[in-house]
Amino acid sequence: MNTTLETPALLLDEARMMRNVARMQSRMDQLGVAFRPHVKTSKCVEVVKRQMAAGSRGITVSTLKEAEEFFCAGINDILYAVGIVPNKLDHALKLIRDGLRLTLLLESVAMAEQVARHGAEHGVCYDVMIEIDTDGHRSGVKPDDPVLLQIAAALQGGARLKGVMTHAGASYDCNTPEALQAMAEQERSRCVAAATLLRNGGHTCEVVSVGSTPTALSAQHLDGVTEVRAGVYIFFDMVMADVGVCTIDEIAISVLCTVIGHQPDQGWVITDGGWMAMSRDLGRDHHGYGMVCDGDGQPVPELGFGKANQEHGVLQWRREPGVDITQRFPVGSSLRILPNHACATAAQHGSYHVIPQNGGDWPVWPRFNGW
Amino acid sequence: MNTTLETPALLLDEARMMRNVARMQSRMDQLGVAFRPHVKTSKCVEVVKRQMAAGSRGITVSTLKEAEEFFCAGINDILYAVGIVPNKLDHALKLIRDGLRLTLLLESVAMAEQVARHGAEHGVCYDVMIEIDTDGHRSGVKPDDPVLLQIAAALQGGARLKGVMTHAGASYDCNTPEALQAMAEQERSRCVAAATLLRNGGHTCEVVSVGSTPTALSAQHLDGVTEVRAGVYIFFDMVMADVGVCTIDEIAISVLCTVIGHQPDQGWVITDGGWMAMSRDLGRDHHGYGMVCDGDGQPVPELGFGKANQEHGVLQWRREPGVDITQRFPVGSSLRILPNHACATAAQHGSYHVIPQNGGDWPVWPRFNGW
Repeated sequence: MNTTLETPALLLDEARMMRNVARMQSRMDQLGVAFRPHVKTSKCVEVVKRQMAAGSRGITVSTLKEAEEFFCAGINDILYAVGIVPNKLDHALKLIRDGLRLTLLLESVAMAEQVARHGAEHGVCYDVMIEIDTDGHRSGVKPDDPVLLQIAAALQGGARLKGVMTHAGASYDCNTPEALQAMAEQERSRCVAAATLLRNGGHTCEVVSVGSTPTALSAQHLDGVTEVRAGVYIFFDMVMADVGVCTIDEIAISVLCTVIGHQPDQGWVITDGGWMAMSRDLGRDHHGYGMVCDGDGQPVPELGFGKANQEHGVLQWRREPGVDITQRFPVGSSLRILPNHACATAAQHGSYHVIPQNGGDWPVWPRFNGW
Repeated sequence: MNTTLETPALLLDEARMMRNVARMQSRMDQLGVAFRPHVKTSKCVEVVKRQMAAGSRGITVSTLKEAEEFFCAGINDILYAVGIVPNKLDHALKLIRDGLRLTLLLESVAMAEQVARHGAEHGVCYDVMIEIDTDGHRSGVKPDDPVLLQIAAALQGGARLKGVMTHAGASYDCNTPEALQAMAEQERSRCVAAATLLRNGGHTCEVVSVGSTPTALSAQHLDGVTEVRAGVYIFFDMVMADVGVCTIDEIAISVLCTVIGHQPDQGWVITDGGWMAMSRDLGRDHHGYGMVCDGDGQPVPELGFGKANQEHGVLQWRREPGVDITQRFPVGSSLRILPNHACATAAQHGSYHVIPQNGGDWPVWPRFNGW
């Protein structure tokens, strides 16, 4: 890679990303559901613009900062997909008063009552989804739990029930097409069951929202579902390759780093890409801090990335000891690392350096972090 | 904790931090060495100002961005303690031309030649330290390796040898006073030996720089050393408590989060502080994502923090199952988490919220990230 970029730097292969966008959107079109991408992966207006242009209807966010930033960028339909708490209601209220169609999430009668009261006190009606637990991996109400009806009943006055939402995070632990299809069907059927319970109880439940990258790419049908959410598909990563929903050459981001030294007797190649550049996410624990590639992005499986300090990567030569690693990977040479977890690695950086397709300048796409 | 702060938020206990500053500086004064704090931990001008006021002479940085930011804040003597590579030389040159006394680090003849050539071509003389490997944990030249003399010989024209530098990162694996003292003595004696080898070879070697938080706090004497560096002591963390150089009530930062829900049958308390707020750093792997405390900062060992998603912390009740966790930790209540690794956790945030000592407003101290 012929570049004078200061390293470490986060690189984005736009052509790969656009193929990932097209693949997911065409699948959603075939399945007949709206697609609401989760933008927590990129936190980048330039990326999300391209998802919207491809057909996304609204977005999903993981923080109110994302809601605020993307609303400023012109996106007007946003689902905040983390359970709301009292200290965020004033911020949500401000965004709604400024004109954002913001949907909140909750899973308890206590928060439903507080949200409804806050809305009534301030003269707004919050759109609310109830989180459904379809896989036992995190938050949400079980789809057959009668508390669903109590939550729905509490959402009146300053709030209204818009629908139900689930995320089958357990799909990240699958690794066969059969397991993924079964998980997608479980996610669908249980979320639809929750909607049915609510409707049978006399409540409207317009939206049935499901999704994770693995289940979105594995579902055989989505009867009863109105929208799907997925995030990491935009870049993919080594975890998704292990799950089996992408190949390594579909991974659209990598961390460019530079060799700063060696410990030849240990077989170590030391780079300026440490855990600050990669994150501490070890994925499924068998790619170390990520998959090492050469400067052009071709995998170099002979180098393992098992150890990192804040600004140092320690790569281990795993083949015959006779090779002179100081010559094979000289000081100043470039390597690129494919991330275990795209959301975590990208969050360590303030911008994407977009690889120019035909030489020339490198566009820089800013991203934001924090809350 | 009576606060309307939006969560998650990084809290700083300034009184604790100032005690940590005073403890380290008085130790350095006793040992008769200059102290050059490593500011990669805080990346915060307000914090570093207080270290300088306490007696620090110059600072250590892990990125050129830190060098640039702290130079802009008026600090003029900066050691960039990661091996320099060609793509960063123009940036270093610019900072030096702007008036910064910047010292570079390297460990190979190849980079020494490039640095000297770059300096000569651009009419500057780079101050350079040679990195010494005193513990086999990362970079650097062995203290008795004759390549030291070749590197020193290559540093002429556009560069000059300022000294030798080492970091005994292996000290993080110690956990008894005896082991720490032995590691400190190994770090000292080997770094001094490298300086002696260089001086015997006819080179000046003005600076002998050692340090890590554990060795700085454990050294019995520092004969032959001119300066010490340490970073994480400013805040301390669970890893340093495990190493044995601080107590839990000396840890000066914590992540404030809010309970967003429960899974009572699993004993789970779910918060809005996930791995994005904590980092993925698991420390020594026995505190999960950090030590759970109540809103006032008192440890709650009954809650383990073994699982996290991007914006969700999943805390596990570890005691008798009869307790109603939805009442004990209700939705909307505050918890604070002490980090495993202060450098990693702080880097996930854009600012420190300083706990007011006598009520009143919360000062916000910005920090920066990236390269």
